[in-house]
Amino acid sequence: MFDVCIIGAGPAGISSAVYAVSRGLSTLVLEQKAVGGLIGSVSTVTHYAGILKEETGATFAERLRRQAEDAGAQIVMERAEQVQLSGPVKVIRTGQHVYEARAVIIAGGTVPRKLGIPGEEEFAGRGTGLNAARDGQRYAGREMFVVGGADGAVKEALYLSRFAKKLTIIHFEDRLGAIPEFYRRVEQTENIELMLHSRLTEVRGNEQAEELTVEDVHTGRSTVISAPGCGIFIYAGSVPNTQLYPELEKQDGYLVTGPGQTTSIPGVFAAGDICVKQVRQAATAVSDGAVAAIRAAAYLAEQKQ
Amino acid sequence: MFDVCIIGAGPAGISSAVYAVSRGLSTLVLEQKAVGGLIGSVSTVTHYAGILKEETGATFAERLRRQAEDAGAQIVMERAEQVQLSGPVKVIRTGQHVYEARAVIIAGGTVPRKLGIPGEEEFAGRGTGLNAARDGQRYAGREMFVVGGADGAVKEALYLSRFAKKLTIIHFEDRLGAIPEFYRRVEQTENIELMLHSRLTEVRGNEQAEELTVEDVHTGRSTVISAPGCGIFIYAGSVPNTQLYPELEKQDGYLVTGPGQTTSIPGVFAAGDICVKQVRQAATAVSDGAVAAIRAAAYLAEQKQ
Repeated sequence: MFDVCIIGAGPAGISSAVYAVSRGLSTLVLEQKAVGGLIGSVSTVTHYAGILKEETGATFAERLRRQAEDAGAQIVMERAEQVQLSGPVKVIRTGQHVYEARAVIIAGGTVPRKLGIPGEEEFAGRGTGLNAARDGQRYAGREMFVVGGADGAVKEALYLSRFAKKLTIIHFEDRLGAIPEFYRRVEQTENIELMLHSRLTEVRGNEQAEELTVEDVHTGRSTVISAPGCGIFIYAGSVPNTQLYPELEKQDGYLVTGPGQTTSIPGVFAAGDICVKQVRQAATAVSDGAVAAIRAAAYLAEQKQ
Repeated sequence: MFDVCIIGAGPAGISSAVYAVSRGLSTLVLEQKAVGGLIGSVSTVTHYAGILKEETGATFAERLRRQAEDAGAQIVMERAEQVQLSGPVKVIRTGQHVYEARAVIIAGGTVPRKLGIPGEEEFAGRGTGLNAARDGQRYAGREMFVVGGADGAVKEALYLSRFAKKLTIIHFEDRLGAIPEFYRRVEQTENIELMLHSRLTEVRGNEQAEELTVEDVHTGRSTVISAPGCGIFIYAGSVPNTQLYPELEKQDGYLVTGPGQTTSIPGVFAAGDICVKQVRQAATAVSDGAVAAIRAAAYLAEQKQ
């Protein structure tokens, strides 16, 4: 029996864990994929106060992992598959074990949205399904495409442009949705080209992706781009990992939280990108995690009385 | 004319600055004392996600300064002495200059509360007015006193105990108000002694502080402790730096903020410890700063239309 089980080891989950341990709570963190969460896989961590110069997602994630483990949190690489949240003892089942905890902090974040177009699955690892930080260098000297125009997409496009022969950003809106800092850098980068009001609708090829079909959203006209051996990096938004929590209040799939990162069930808290919020940044996730853990400790102290 | 003037260069102010620049805003940061704010002067930075192992306030503050300056924020070491916040152009006067900005983010934090007892001022630098990180080693081998029992006080007591011959925590409540992590470490530290339900009421001496008078808050009885050459480290809470802002809504002296870290005046935002909030930690300050800057950028974009 743990005092608190934290689902997800991104910035929100790790921050929760560090604070929970500091409040004397025995703390379990479950992570299905990799410590660091989404930010662990980005090419560059930006804007979070206190990062190192040229910080990569990998170095940041490694520091988070070590910090939580040094503090005394137990991080287990298992996927929460079923949860039972009502009542004083919460039960979390993974494929391997059944865990019990007196409080739960849900910090499961989001997963990248798939486009759901022909060829996307078929060419995974052979042109699609790529990650800039992991695969960028492997595609050096080739033609690259980034699908998406928000901050995350444009940041990775800027990183990939160092390696790309030519990089095209395919975005369905009439202009990029990125912050001025990134927008200015795109304008200054010669090998980046914008393909706006455009949607990628199909990827074709043989061994590798060879052709992209792109539709103009204004005219409906399709163009076929020939780019044998190209790399297609898809950053087309994200979907909250909230399927496990049908009983919690949601808005557009995100968890609704009250003051202290509480949810609609006593003893269940939520933190980070998985929550309804205005600003989804590492900074706000880390803050949520601290607040959730402090509130969870207060909840557990009240329960003991 | 700057887009945004940030008052205070602690974690909230620096985070604001980094985000403001990333949103394309010309950004001025005014700091009266030292970049890093209160946390820049602590012996150890704890619990903030992503810190380095054994991070000191000084190393953390230096990284914050470099991050903001590398981003392109202008940090000026001047004290804001008068502000005029209403209207579309905000005016900030320091002793040296008059600055104008279209938006202001107030991130002035707090200052340590003084005890206001006889001897506190007189022996400043000769036994009182000390800072653990700066003065701890200088008092090595001597008797030390920490006044205060909250997290900040106890953390510094733990640090100072490495150097002290003997360290006494003087706290007016019946038990320490520190988190379990610190409490446990206090119990494990042999040269720390607790003097609870006690108030320091006077410091006397000649060249150096020599005697402390301590009053038992239950019995009203005073005890005189002889400790020639001792170091007295006072961590007795803090007071928000809000004297400059009589026109803003406050609660117990702290600034009241709405969603997006807005204040009661358009174009004026507040972030960090200076705000009314449940959890005062670097993590929440950094989050406030990010949110305030993003909201300030949106405000300025609306103004231009």
